[in-house]
Amino acid sequence: MENKKTNNNIIIGRNPVTEALRSGRDIDKILVGPGQEGSIKKIIGMAKDRGIMIVNSEKTALDRIAGATNHQGVIAYASAYEYKEVDDILALAKERGEDPFIIILDGLEDPHNLGAIMRSAEGAGAHGVIIPKRRSVGLTEVAAKASAGAVEYMPVARVTNIARTIEELKEAGLWIAACDMGDTLYYEADLTGGIAVVVGSEGFGISRLVSEKCDFTVSMPMMGKINSLNASNAAAILLYEVRRQRDLKAKLK
Amino acid sequence: MENKKTNNNIIIGRNPVTEALRSGRDIDKILVGPGQEGSIKKIIGMAKDRGIMIVNSEKTALDRIAGATNHQGVIAYASAYEYKEVDDILALAKERGEDPFIIILDGLEDPHNLGAIMRSAEGAGAHGVIIPKRRSVGLTEVAAKASAGAVEYMPVARVTNIARTIEELKEAGLWIAACDMGDTLYYEADLTGGIAVVVGSEGFGISRLVSEKCDFTVSMPMMGKINSLNASNAAAILLYEVRRQRDLKAKLK
Repeated sequence: MENKKTNNNIIIGRNPVTEALRSGRDIDKILVGPGQEGSIKKIIGMAKDRGIMIVNSEKTALDRIAGATNHQGVIAYASAYEYKEVDDILALAKERGEDPFIIILDGLEDPHNLGAIMRSAEGAGAHGVIIPKRRSVGLTEVAAKASAGAVEYMPVARVTNIARTIEELKEAGLWIAACDMGDTLYYEADLTGGIAVVVGSEGFGISRLVSEKCDFTVSMPMMGKINSLNASNAAAILLYEVRRQRDLKAKLK
Repeated sequence: MENKKTNNNIIIGRNPVTEALRSGRDIDKILVGPGQEGSIKKIIGMAKDRGIMIVNSEKTALDRIAGATNHQGVIAYASAYEYKEVDDILALAKERGEDPFIIILDGLEDPHNLGAIMRSAEGAGAHGVIIPKRRSVGLTEVAAKASAGAVEYMPVARVTNIARTIEELKEAGLWIAACDMGDTLYYEADLTGGIAVVVGSEGFGISRLVSEKCDFTVSMPMMGKINSLNASNAAAILLYEVRRQRDLKAKLK
């Protein structure tokens, strides 16, 4: 549970939330109570324009989060850490003189998984992580803590539309590999060159719209009776397979 | 937090705990309050004989866990799931006509990590997981849930002394690979043949006594600024590297 009053990421009340929206601060989501008239309507409009998730909540839920502070029917959760742009990630690859190496997380829900993946991405030498603005965990304190420091080094970009971002990455010359069930085993696919690997949500995998945009699908051999891995474990295996193939290619040159 | 009264795994009071110990039921740990006289002394003795962890606790902590039940200064946590023996794991490999493939977790603390590793082990075709009785997470409900069903299929053996178990596995013909910092990259080591890979705890890695017993060390390339991965991610990468090398070897035959 998030800590009520010592948490700087919780913004309580109409004016503070309006100011945070105006300032362009990264906001993960906004909770609004019943009876959404007047300035709350304006807040909802501004939030929608910026693609921020709006959660309709009970008054008692807002009361519990706000504690002694008067929430006036609205509470915003600001991001604990700064997001980067997809262009920043591509620029980092260029700066290092490397083919871009990105992981896209399509709807991850668990902040521990996000943190672990950021850590594995940093270790494997990826240039960035891309997550969607909606229906996804963001850079919360829990995710940051689970990243064991990687949050300081690994750029995370949050985009409105993963499918559109994939189109842009393709135009930038990247191959897009979906991690899903399929015929090609991940270690038999060529993962060298500029690449973005896509891992889906814990419960539902990769959404159809996103899946259709991918160039090819790679799968893990599943030798037992269960048919999928923990999302961060699947991501780690793929990230390090990209690393292994890149290292091997470099040695063969 | 574990649910107080609906949880069958919590055994409260001197007689119930004594009975559970006598019946040979798997017990993860026993909490004892201050003032350990009479039958509590006997319980502690029986628990020590069986290598069960004993945690000295405040009376208020016991009160909180016991709720309305009179705990009489002692509470035991029984295992939610049945453990297997190391011999069962070796027998499973033999039954499948495969070289043994085992993962040893030296002091893992997080039940989510244990569950994720069981899932990856099951997917990679390992024959079992070995954990120590003390200073390690056990097969709790949280671990079982995180295993997403793998708890039903993946044998987990709990041993008193990991170093001694490694000796026994060596005698059975297995190679023991420690996952730690070192010179040999995991994908450059030969991980085919009978093998047990050892992954350490989240905070402290592999203990010295265990490390000394291993045949060789494999490490992940760490391309960024942080120097280790989440324990379940490291385990998943290693487990699937064993899988990859086994599959490759089989294809070359």
